[in-house]
Amino acid sequence: MSASQMQLIALPGLPMVRPGDALADQILAGVAAAGETLRTGDVLVVAQKIVSKAEGRYADIRDVTPSARAQELAADVHKDPRLVELILSETQSVLRHRPGVLVVVHRLGYVMANAGIDHSNVGPDGDDHVLLLPEDPDGSARALRDRFAADPGVAVGVIVSDSVGRAWRNGTVGMALGVAGLPALQDLRGRNDLYGRPLEVSQVALADELAAAASLLQGQADEGMPVVLIRGAKIDGEPRDAAALLRPASEDLFR
Amino acid sequence: MSASQMQLIALPGLPMVRPGDALADQILAGVAAAGETLRTGDVLVVAQKIVSKAEGRYADIRDVTPSARAQELAADVHKDPRLVELILSETQSVLRHRPGVLVVVHRLGYVMANAGIDHSNVGPDGDDHVLLLPEDPDGSARALRDRFAADPGVAVGVIVSDSVGRAWRNGTVGMALGVAGLPALQDLRGRNDLYGRPLEVSQVALADELAAAASLLQGQADEGMPVVLIRGAKIDGEPRDAAALLRPASEDLFR
Repeated sequence: MSASQMQLIALPGLPMVRPGDALADQILAGVAAAGETLRTGDVLVVAQKIVSKAEGRYADIRDVTPSARAQELAADVHKDPRLVELILSETQSVLRHRPGVLVVVHRLGYVMANAGIDHSNVGPDGDDHVLLLPEDPDGSARALRDRFAADPGVAVGVIVSDSVGRAWRNGTVGMALGVAGLPALQDLRGRNDLYGRPLEVSQVALADELAAAASLLQGQADEGMPVVLIRGAKIDGEPRDAAALLRPASEDLFR
Repeated sequence: MSASQMQLIALPGLPMVRPGDALADQILAGVAAAGETLRTGDVLVVAQKIVSKAEGRYADIRDVTPSARAQELAADVHKDPRLVELILSETQSVLRHRPGVLVVVHRLGYVMANAGIDHSNVGPDGDDHVLLLPEDPDGSARALRDRFAADPGVAVGVIVSDSVGRAWRNGTVGMALGVAGLPALQDLRGRNDLYGRPLEVSQVALADELAAAASLLQGQADEGMPVVLIRGAKIDGEPRDAAALLRPASEDLFR
Protein backbone atom coordinates (compact mmCIF):
# COMPACT_ATOMS: atom_id res chain seq x y z
CA MET A 1 0.00 0.00 0.00
CA SER A 2 1.37 3.42 -0.89
CA ALA A 3 2.18 5.94 1.80
CA SER A 4 -0.84 7.99 0.76
CA GLN A 5 -3.42 5.36 1.60
CA MET A 6 -4.91 4.39 4.90
CA GLN A 7 -7.16 1.46 5.67
CA LEU A 8 -9.50 0.91 8.59
CA ILE A 9 -10.83 -2.52 9.44
CA ALA A 10 -13.44 -3.10 12.14
CA LEU A 11 -12.64 -6.43 13.77
CA PRO A 12 -15.52 -8.88 13.62
CA GLY A 13 -16.55 -11.49 16.08
CA LEU A 14 -15.41 -10.01 19.36
CA PRO A 15 -17.38 -11.64 22.17
CA MET A 16 -19.20 -9.74 24.88
CA VAL A 17 -16.29 -8.80 27.12
CA ARG A 18 -16.48 -9.82 30.79
CA PRO A 19 -14.42 -8.81 33.83
CA GLY A 20 -11.07 -10.56 33.85
CA ASP A 21 -11.19 -11.41 30.16
CA ALA A 22 -7.83 -11.47 28.40
CA LEU A 23 -8.63 -8.61 26.06
CA ALA A 24 -5.39 -8.92 24.08
CA ASP A 25 -6.27 -12.52 23.15
CA GLN A 26 -9.76 -11.50 22.11
CA ILE A 27 -8.37 -8.71 19.94
CA LEU A 28 -5.88 -11.08 18.29
CA ALA A 29 -8.74 -13.50 17.59
CA GLY A 30 -10.64 -10.59 16.01
CA VAL A 31 -7.62 -9.70 13.86
CA ALA A 32 -7.48 -13.30 12.69
CA ALA A 33 -11.24 -13.36 12.08
CA ALA A 34 -10.75 -10.34 9.82
CA GLY A 35 -8.24 -12.35 7.82
CA GLU A 36 -5.38 -10.13 8.95
CA THR A 37 -2.22 -10.33 11.01
CA LEU A 38 -0.87 -7.40 12.98
CA ARG A 39 2.05 -5.56 11.40
CA THR A 40 4.50 -3.10 12.83
CA GLY A 41 3.07 0.37 12.26
CA ASP A 42 -0.54 -0.69 12.66
CA VAL A 43 -2.72 1.15 15.16
CA LEU A 44 -5.44 -0.56 17.16
CA VAL A 45 -8.22 1.68 18.41
CA VAL A 46 -10.06 -0.03 21.26
CA ALA A 47 -13.32 1.36 22.62
CA GLN A 48 -13.05 2.39 26.26
CA LYS A 49 -16.12 0.37 27.05
CA ILE A 50 -14.58 -3.04 26.46
CA VAL A 51 -11.38 -2.03 28.26
CA SER A 52 -13.44 -0.97 31.27
CA LYS A 53 -15.45 -4.20 31.11
CA ALA A 54 -12.34 -6.39 30.98
CA GLU A 55 -10.98 -4.43 33.94
CA GLY A 56 -14.23 -4.88 35.85
CA ARG A 57 -14.90 -1.15 36.21
CA TYR A 58 -18.56 -1.68 36.99
CA ALA A 59 -20.40 0.02 39.79
CA ASP A 60 -23.83 -0.85 41.12
CA ILE A 61 -25.62 2.36 41.96
CA ARG A 62 -27.68 0.49 44.57
CA ASP A 63 -24.47 0.30 46.61
CA VAL A 64 -23.89 4.07 46.54
CA THR A 65 -24.89 6.47 49.32
CA PRO A 66 -25.01 9.99 47.93
CA SER A 67 -23.34 12.81 49.85
CA ALA A 68 -25.15 16.06 50.58
CA ARG A 69 -23.24 17.69 47.73
CA ALA A 70 -24.26 14.93 45.32
CA GLN A 71 -27.89 15.29 46.37
CA GLU A 72 -27.84 19.04 45.82
CA LEU A 73 -26.14 18.76 42.44
CA ALA A 74 -28.44 15.91 41.40
CA ALA A 75 -31.44 18.14 42.01
CA ASP A 76 -29.89 20.80 39.77
CA VAL A 77 -29.03 18.44 36.91
CA HIS A 78 -32.05 16.13 37.23
CA LYS A 79 -30.00 12.96 37.65
CA ASP A 80 -30.02 10.12 40.18
CA PRO A 81 -28.11 11.33 43.30
CA ARG A 82 -26.30 8.00 43.48
CA LEU A 83 -25.10 8.38 39.89
CA VAL A 84 -23.98 11.93 40.66
CA GLU A 85 -22.06 10.62 43.68
CA LEU A 86 -20.26 8.17 41.41
CA ILE A 87 -19.53 10.95 38.92
CA LEU A 88 -18.11 13.13 41.70
CA SER A 89 -15.94 10.23 42.87
CA GLU A 90 -14.30 10.28 39.43
CA THR A 91 -14.06 14.07 39.23
CA GLN A 92 -11.43 16.75 39.93
CA SER A 93 -13.86 19.64 39.57
CA VAL A 94 -17.31 20.43 38.21
CA LEU A 95 -16.97 22.75 35.20
CA ARG A 96 -20.58 23.45 34.18
CA HIS A 97 -23.98 22.12 35.11
CA ARG A 98 -27.55 22.77 34.24
CA PRO A 99 -30.63 20.54 33.98
CA GLY A 100 -29.63 17.43 32.06
CA VAL A 101 -25.96 18.41 31.73
CA LEU A 102 -23.02 17.84 34.08
CA VAL A 103 -19.60 18.62 32.58
CA VAL A 104 -16.62 17.87 34.80
CA VAL A 105 -12.86 17.57 34.75
CA HIS A 106 -12.28 13.84 35.18
CA ARG A 107 -9.65 12.86 37.77
CA LEU A 108 -7.28 12.17 34.84
CA GLY A 109 -7.84 15.61 33.31
CA TYR A 110 -10.33 14.95 30.51
CA VAL A 111 -13.20 17.40 30.24
CA MET A 112 -16.27 15.21 29.81
CA ALA A 113 -19.95 14.95 30.55
CA ASN A 114 -20.69 12.71 33.55
CA ALA A 115 -16.97 11.83 34.02
CA GLY A 116 -17.40 9.37 31.16
CA ILE A 117 -19.71 7.12 33.18
CA ASP A 118 -22.01 5.29 30.86
CA HIS A 119 -25.17 3.20 30.85
CA SER A 120 -25.26 2.19 27.18
CA ASN A 121 -24.14 -1.32 26.22
CA VAL A 122 -23.06 -1.97 29.82
CA GLY A 123 -24.93 -5.19 30.35
CA PRO A 124 -28.27 -6.90 30.43
CA ASP A 125 -28.93 -6.17 34.11
CA GLY A 126 -30.93 -3.03 33.55
CA ASP A 127 -30.10 0.41 34.81
CA ASP A 128 -28.43 -0.45 38.12
CA HIS A 129 -24.98 -1.12 36.69
CA VAL A 130 -22.85 1.59 35.19
CA LEU A 131 -19.35 1.52 33.80
CA LEU A 132 -16.53 3.84 34.86
CA LEU A 133 -13.57 4.77 32.67
CA PRO A 134 -10.51 2.52 33.05
CA GLU A 135 -8.37 3.23 36.11
CA ASP A 136 -5.43 4.29 33.88
CA PRO A 137 -6.20 4.32 30.13
CA ASP A 138 -2.59 5.07 29.15
CA GLY A 139 -1.58 2.05 31.22
CA SER A 140 -4.32 -0.07 29.63
CA ALA A 141 -3.07 0.92 26.17
CA ARG A 142 0.52 0.20 27.19
CA ALA A 143 -0.36 -3.24 28.53
CA LEU A 144 -1.98 -4.18 25.21
CA ARG A 145 0.92 -2.76 23.24
CA ASP A 146 3.47 -4.60 25.39
CA ARG A 147 1.59 -7.84 24.91
CA PHE A 148 1.54 -7.42 21.12
CA ALA A 149 5.25 -6.46 21.16
CA ALA A 150 6.07 -9.71 22.98
CA ASP A 151 3.62 -11.97 21.18
CA PRO A 152 3.06 -11.82 18.18
CA GLY A 153 6.10 -9.56 18.31
CA VAL A 154 5.05 -6.42 16.42
CA ALA A 155 5.34 -2.75 17.32
CA VAL A 156 1.80 -1.40 17.08
CA GLY A 157 0.19 1.73 18.43
CA VAL A 158 -2.78 1.32 20.76
CA ILE A 159 -5.46 3.90 21.51
CA VAL A 160 -8.22 3.55 24.10
CA SER A 161 -11.01 5.70 22.68
CA ASP A 162 -14.31 7.19 23.74
CA SER A 163 -17.00 9.32 22.10
CA VAL A 164 -17.34 12.73 23.68
CA GLY A 165 -19.20 15.98 23.30
CA ARG A 166 -17.41 19.26 22.68
CA ALA A 167 -17.68 22.97 23.23
CA TRP A 168 -19.33 24.98 20.45
CA ARG A 169 -20.34 22.08 18.20
CA ASN A 170 -23.13 19.53 18.13
CA GLY A 171 -22.53 15.81 18.09
CA THR A 172 -19.91 13.55 19.59
CA VAL A 173 -16.52 12.66 18.11
CA GLY A 174 -14.03 9.93 18.92
CA MET A 175 -11.32 11.01 21.37
CA ALA A 176 -8.20 9.30 22.74
CA LEU A 177 -8.29 8.54 26.47
CA GLY A 178 -5.18 6.36 26.49
CA VAL A 179 -2.31 6.05 24.03
CA ALA A 180 0.76 3.84 23.74
CA GLY A 181 3.35 3.42 21.01
CA LEU A 182 2.65 6.56 19.02
CA PRO A 183 2.79 10.33 19.56
CA ALA A 184 -0.65 11.27 20.88
CA LEU A 185 0.31 14.83 20.00
CA GLN A 186 2.42 15.27 16.90
CA ASP A 187 4.81 18.18 16.97
CA LEU A 188 5.40 19.84 13.60
CA ARG A 189 7.34 22.78 14.98
CA GLY A 190 10.37 23.39 12.82
CA ARG A 191 8.67 22.19 9.65
CA ASN A 192 7.97 24.47 6.73
CA ASP A 193 4.97 25.03 4.54
CA LEU A 194 4.95 24.47 0.77
CA TYR A 195 6.73 27.79 0.29
CA GLY A 196 9.38 27.22 2.91
CA ARG A 197 7.86 29.39 5.62
CA PRO A 198 7.56 28.08 9.20
CA LEU A 199 4.24 26.38 9.73
CA GLU A 200 1.60 28.19 11.79
CA VAL A 201 -0.30 25.12 12.93
CA SER A 202 2.38 23.28 14.77
CA GLN A 203 0.81 20.57 16.89
CA VAL A 204 -1.64 17.98 15.62
CA ALA A 205 -3.81 15.87 17.93
CA LEU A 206 -2.87 12.71 16.07
CA ALA A 207 -4.42 10.24 18.51
CA ASP A 208 -7.70 12.16 18.60
CA GLU A 209 -7.85 12.12 14.80
CA LEU A 210 -7.17 8.37 14.77
CA ALA A 211 -9.88 7.86 17.42
CA ALA A 212 -12.33 9.96 15.38
CA ALA A 213 -11.55 7.94 12.25
CA ALA A 214 -12.06 4.65 14.08
CA SER A 215 -15.31 5.91 15.55
CA LEU A 216 -16.76 5.96 12.02
CA LEU A 217 -16.62 2.16 12.04
CA GLN A 218 -17.13 1.48 15.74
CA GLY A 219 -20.60 2.97 15.72
CA GLN A 220 -22.55 4.07 18.76
CA ALA A 221 -25.53 1.81 18.63
CA ASP A 222 -26.00 -1.92 18.33
CA GLU A 223 -23.26 -2.48 15.76
CA GLY A 224 -20.86 -3.82 18.38
CA MET A 225 -17.55 -3.19 16.59
CA PRO A 226 -15.37 -1.94 19.44
CA VAL A 227 -11.93 -2.52 17.89
CA VAL A 228 -10.67 -0.96 14.68
CA LEU A 229 -7.35 -1.73 13.03
CA ILE A 230 -5.82 1.26 11.22
CA ARG A 231 -3.11 0.56 8.68
CA GLY A 232 -1.11 3.13 6.73
CA ALA A 233 -1.45 6.15 9.01
CA LYS A 234 1.46 8.54 8.61
CA ILE A 235 2.99 8.47 12.06
CA ASP A 236 6.37 9.72 13.06
CA GLY A 237 7.89 11.11 16.20
CA GLU A 238 8.53 9.80 19.66
CA PRO A 239 5.67 8.09 21.49
CA ARG A 240 3.76 10.34 23.87
CA ASP A 241 0.83 9.21 25.95
CA ALA A 242 -2.64 10.73 26.02
CA ALA A 243 -1.73 13.10 28.83
CA ALA A 244 0.05 15.17 26.15
CA LEU A 245 -3.37 16.03 24.74
CA LEU A 246 -4.58 17.70 27.93
CA ARG A 247 -4.27 21.47 27.88
CA PRO A 248 -3.23 22.70 31.32
CA ALA A 249 -6.02 24.63 33.04
CA SER A 250 -3.70 27.63 33.30
CA GLU A 251 -3.48 27.81 29.48
CA ASP A 252 -7.15 27.08 28.80
CA LEU A 253 -9.40 30.04 28.00
CA PHE A 254 -12.60 27.99 28.14
CA ARG A 255 -12.94 26.68 31.71
CA MET B 1 -15.12 -4.27 0.27
CA SER B 2 -17.07 -5.37 3.31
CA ALA B 3 -19.23 -2.92 5.23
CA SER B 4 -16.75 -3.00 8.09
CA GLN B 5 -13.84 -1.59 6.13
CA MET B 6 -13.02 1.94 5.18
CA GLN B 7 -10.31 3.18 2.87
CA LEU B 8 -8.75 6.62 2.59
CA ILE B 9 -6.78 7.66 -0.47
CA ALA B 10 -4.89 10.94 -0.68
CA LEU B 11 -5.14 12.13 -4.27
CA PRO B 12 -1.75 12.68 -5.87
CA GLY B 13 -0.69 15.23 -8.40
CA LEU B 14 -3.01 18.12 -7.68
CA PRO B 15 -1.45 21.28 -9.08
CA MET B 16 -1.00 24.50 -7.13
CA VAL B 17 -4.52 25.86 -7.23
CA ARG B 18 -5.01 29.38 -8.59
CA PRO B 19 -7.98 31.76 -8.53
CA GLY B 20 -10.60 30.77 -11.07
CA ASP B 21 -9.30 27.22 -11.40
CA ALA B 22 -11.93 24.58 -12.10
CA LEU B 23 -11.39 22.69 -8.87
CA ALA B 24 -13.78 19.87 -9.77
CA ASP B 25 -11.72 19.06 -12.87
CA GLN B 26 -8.50 19.08 -10.88
CA ILE B 27 -10.03 16.74 -8.30
CA LEU B 28 -11.22 14.36 -11.01
CA ALA B 29 -7.74 14.39 -12.51
CA GLY B 30 -6.38 13.53 -9.06
CA VAL B 31 -8.86 10.67 -8.72
CA ALA B 32 -7.69 9.33 -12.07
CA ALA B 33 -4.02 9.81 -11.08
CA ALA B 34 -4.76 7.64 -8.03
CA GLY B 35 -6.00 4.93 -10.38
CA GLU B 36 -9.55 5.32 -9.10
CA THR B 37 -12.94 6.38 -10.35
CA LEU B 38 -15.52 8.02 -8.14
CA ARG B 39 -18.32 5.78 -6.93
CA THR B 40 -21.66 6.56 -5.37
CA GLY B 41 -21.17 6.60 -1.61
CA ASP B 42 -17.62 7.94 -1.76
CA VAL B 43 -16.79 11.02 0.27
CA LEU B 44 -14.30 13.63 -0.92
CA VAL B 45 -12.69 15.71 1.79
CA VAL B 46 -11.24 18.88 0.29
CA ALA B 47 -8.96 21.17 2.29
CA GLN B 48 -10.45 24.63 2.76
CA LYS B 49 -7.24 26.15 1.54
CA ILE B 50 -7.56 25.00 -2.06
CA VAL B 51 -11.26 25.88 -2.14
CA SER B 52 -10.42 29.39 -0.96
CA LYS B 53 -7.62 29.64 -3.50
CA ALA B 54 -9.85 28.55 -6.38
CA GLU B 55 -12.42 31.09 -5.23
CA GLY B 56 -9.78 33.82 -5.04
CA ARG B 57 -10.30 34.54 -1.35
CA TYR B 58 -6.96 36.29 -1.02
CA ALA B 59 -6.46 39.55 0.74
CA ASP B 60 -3.38 41.75 0.63
CA ILE B 61 -2.85 43.21 4.06
CA ARG B 62 -1.09 46.20 2.47
CA ASP B 63 -4.53 47.25 1.20
CA VAL B 64 -6.10 47.20 4.69
CA THR B 65 -6.57 50.26 6.89
CA PRO B 66 -7.10 49.15 10.49
CA SER B 67 -9.92 50.65 12.53
CA ALA B 68 -9.33 52.01 16.01
CA ARG B 69 -10.84 48.82 17.44
CA ALA B 70 -8.52 46.66 15.36
CA GLN B 71 -5.52 48.71 16.50
CA GLU B 72 -6.49 48.33 20.14
CA LEU B 73 -7.12 44.60 19.86
CA ALA B 74 -3.91 44.12 17.85
CA ALA B 75 -1.91 45.66 20.68
CA ASP B 76 -3.52 43.19 23.10
CA VAL B 77 -2.91 40.09 20.97
CA HIS B 78 0.45 41.16 19.48
CA LYS B 79 -0.68 40.83 15.88
CA ASP B 80 -0.50 43.12 12.85
CA PRO B 81 -3.42 45.61 13.14
CA ARG B 82 -4.21 45.13 9.45
CA LEU B 83 -4.49 41.37 9.94
CA VAL B 84 -6.73 41.97 12.97
CA GLU B 85 -8.92 44.26 10.85
CA LEU B 86 -9.31 41.44 8.30
CA ILE B 87 -10.11 38.98 11.10
CA LEU B 88 -12.77 41.35 12.48
CA SER B 89 -14.26 41.72 9.00
CA GLU B 90 -14.90 37.95 9.05
CA THR B 91 -16.14 37.88 12.65
CA GLN B 92 -19.49 37.94 14.46
CA SER B 93 -17.97 38.41 17.89
CA VAL B 94 -14.66 38.11 19.71
CA LEU B 95 -14.85 35.25 22.22
CA ARG B 96 -11.43 35.30 23.93
CA HIS B 97 -8.17 37.10 23.41
CA ARG B 98 -4.81 37.32 25.05
CA PRO B 99 -1.26 37.82 23.74
CA GLY B 100 -0.82 35.55 20.74
CA VAL B 101 -4.40 34.26 20.77
CA LEU B 102 -7.57 35.64 19.18
CA VAL B 103 -10.58 33.28 19.24
CA VAL B 104 -13.69 34.53 17.49
CA VAL B 105 -17.08 33.41 16.25
CA HIS B 106 -16.67 33.50 12.47
CA ARG B 107 -19.48 35.18 10.53
CA LEU B 108 -20.74 31.69 9.62
CA GLY B 109 -20.77 30.54 13.25
CA TYR B 110 -17.57 28.52 13.60
CA VAL B 111 -15.54 29.18 16.73
CA MET B 112 -11.99 29.53 15.46
CA ALA B 113 -8.69 31.27 16.06
CA ASN B 114 -8.16 34.25 13.74
CA ALA B 115 -11.46 33.61 11.89
CA GLY B 116 -9.64 30.88 9.98
CA ILE B 117 -7.39 33.36 8.18
CA ASP B 118 -4.15 31.69 7.30
CA HIS B 119 -0.65 32.48 6.10
CA SER B 120 0.68 28.94 5.61
CA ASN B 121 0.87 27.57 2.08
CA VAL B 122 -0.87 30.67 0.74
CA GLY B 123 1.62 31.53 -1.95
CA PRO B 124 5.18 32.49 -2.72
CA ASP B 125 4.64 36.25 -2.31
CA GLY B 126 5.74 36.40 1.29
CA ASP B 127 3.69 37.54 4.20
CA ASP B 128 1.53 40.20 2.56
CA HIS B 129 -1.10 37.83 1.21
CA VAL B 130 -3.46 35.91 3.45
CA LEU B 131 -6.31 33.58 2.65
CA LEU B 132 -9.85 33.91 4.02
CA LEU B 133 -12.28 31.02 4.41
CA PRO B 134 -14.57 30.42 1.43
CA GLU B 135 -17.53 32.78 1.17
CA ASP B 136 -19.97 29.88 1.69
CA PRO B 137 -18.30 26.50 2.39
CA ASP B 138 -21.61 24.59 2.30
CA GLY B 139 -22.21 26.15 -1.11
CA SER B 140 -18.69 25.28 -2.24
CA ALA B 141 -19.23 21.66 -1.20
CA ARG B 142 -22.62 21.60 -2.93
CA ALA B 143 -21.16 22.96 -6.17
CA LEU B 144 -18.55 20.21 -6.25
CA ARG B 145 -21.14 17.58 -5.39
CA ASP B 146 -23.52 18.84 -8.08
CA ARG B 147 -20.75 18.75 -10.64
CA PHE B 148 -19.85 15.14 -9.77
CA ALA B 149 -23.54 14.19 -9.81
CA ALA B 150 -23.85 15.54 -13.34
CA ASP B 151 -20.48 14.40 -14.66
CA PRO B 152 -19.23 11.69 -14.00
CA GLY B 153 -22.72 11.07 -12.63
CA VAL B 154 -22.16 9.71 -9.13
CA ALA B 155 -23.70 10.67 -5.79
CA VAL B 156 -20.75 11.48 -3.57
CA GLY B 157 -20.46 13.37 -0.32
CA VAL B 158 -18.21 16.43 -0.24
CA ILE B 159 -16.66 18.01 2.84
CA VAL B 160 -14.68 21.24 2.90
CA SER B 161 -12.33 20.77 5.84
CA ASP B 162 -9.97 22.78 8.00
CA SER B 163 -7.66 22.07 10.92
CA VAL B 164 -8.70 23.83 14.09
CA GLY B 165 -7.81 24.15 17.74
CA ARG B 166 -10.22 23.20 20.50
CA ALA B 167 -11.15 23.98 24.06
CA TRP B 168 -9.45 21.86 26.76
CA ARG B 169 -7.15 19.85 24.50
CA ASN B 170 -3.82 20.45 22.79
CA GLY B 171 -3.34 20.07 19.07
CA THR B 172 -5.50 20.66 16.04
CA VAL B 173 -8.02 18.26 14.49
CA GLY B 174 -9.76 18.23 11.14
CA MET B 175 -13.21 19.84 11.17
CA ALA B 176 -15.96 20.21 8.57
CA LEU B 177 -16.63 23.77 7.41
CA GLY B 178 -18.89 22.82 4.54
CA VAL B 179 -20.83 19.65 3.79
CA ALA B 180 -22.96 18.40 0.91
CA GLY B 181 -24.53 15.05 0.17
CA LEU B 182 -24.27 13.48 3.61
CA PRO B 183 -25.59 14.11 7.12
CA ALA B 184 -23.01 16.40 8.75
CA LEU B 185 -24.68 15.46 12.02
CA GLN B 186 -25.95 11.90 12.26
CA ASP B 187 -28.98 11.43 14.43
CA LEU B 188 -29.14 8.11 16.27
CA ARG B 189 -32.10 9.02 18.43
CA GLY B 190 -34.50 6.14 18.51
CA ARG B 191 -31.78 3.51 18.16
CA ASN B 192 -31.04 1.00 20.88
CA ASP B 193 -27.84 -0.23 22.44
CA LEU B 194 -26.70 -3.87 22.37
CA TYR B 195 -29.16 -4.66 25.17
CA GLY B 196 -32.12 -2.92 23.61
CA ARG B 197 -32.02 0.21 25.75
CA PRO B 198 -32.30 3.65 24.15
CA LEU B 199 -28.87 5.01 23.30
CA GLU B 200 -27.47 7.81 25.46
CA VAL B 201 -25.16 9.32 22.87
CA SER B 202 -27.61 10.23 20.20
CA GLN B 203 -25.93 12.60 17.77
CA VAL B 204 -22.62 11.94 16.06
CA ALA B 205 -20.63 14.66 14.32
CA LEU B 206 -20.12 12.47 11.28
CA ALA B 207 -18.62 15.14 9.01
CA ASP B 208 -16.16 16.24 11.68
CA GLU B 209 -15.03 12.63 12.15
CA LEU B 210 -14.60 12.24 8.38
CA ALA B 211 -12.63 15.51 8.27
CA ALA B 212 -10.43 14.34 11.15
CA ALA B 213 -9.79 11.03 9.41
CA ALA B 214 -8.85 12.78 6.16
CA SER B 215 -6.58 15.16 8.03
CA LEU B 216 -4.35 12.19 8.88
CA LEU B 217 -3.41 11.99 5.19
CA GLN B 218 -3.70 15.64 4.22
CA GLY B 219 -0.89 16.66 6.54
CA GLN B 220 -0.20 20.17 7.72
CA ALA B 221 3.24 20.77 6.36
CA ASP B 222 4.79 20.47 2.93
CA GLU B 223 3.08 17.21 1.99
CA GLY B 224 0.54 18.99 -0.24
CA MET B 225 -2.23 16.35 -0.26
CA PRO B 226 -5.32 18.53 0.05
CA VAL B 227 -7.94 16.07 -1.22
CA VAL B 228 -8.71 12.70 0.34
CA LEU B 229 -11.14 10.15 -1.05
CA ILE B 230 -12.93 8.12 1.64
CA ARG B 231 -14.56 4.89 0.59
CA GLY B 232 -16.63 2.59 2.78
CA ALA B 233 -17.78 5.01 5.49
CA LYS B 234 -21.04 3.92 7.07
CA ILE B 235 -23.32 6.78 6.18
CA ASP B 236 -27.06 6.87 6.40
CA GLY B 237 -29.65 9.52 6.96
CA GLU B 238 -30.78 12.59 5.12
CA PRO B 239 -28.11 15.06 3.99
CA ARG B 240 -27.58 17.98 6.35
CA ASP B 241 -25.10 20.75 5.76
CA ALA B 242 -22.32 21.85 8.12
CA ALA B 243 -24.56 24.40 9.82
CA ALA B 244 -26.10 21.44 11.67
CA LEU B 245 -22.82 21.08 13.55
CA LEU B 246 -23.01 24.56 15.06
CA ARG B 247 -24.33 24.60 18.61
CA PRO B 248 -26.52 27.66 19.09
CA ALA B 249 -24.90 30.18 21.44
CA SER B 250 -27.96 29.93 23.70
CA GLU B 251 -27.25 26.21 24.27
CA ASP B 252 -23.47 26.56 24.59
CA LEU B 253 -22.01 26.54 28.10
CA PHE B 254 -18.51 27.48 26.94
CA ARG B 255 -18.73 30.92 25.35
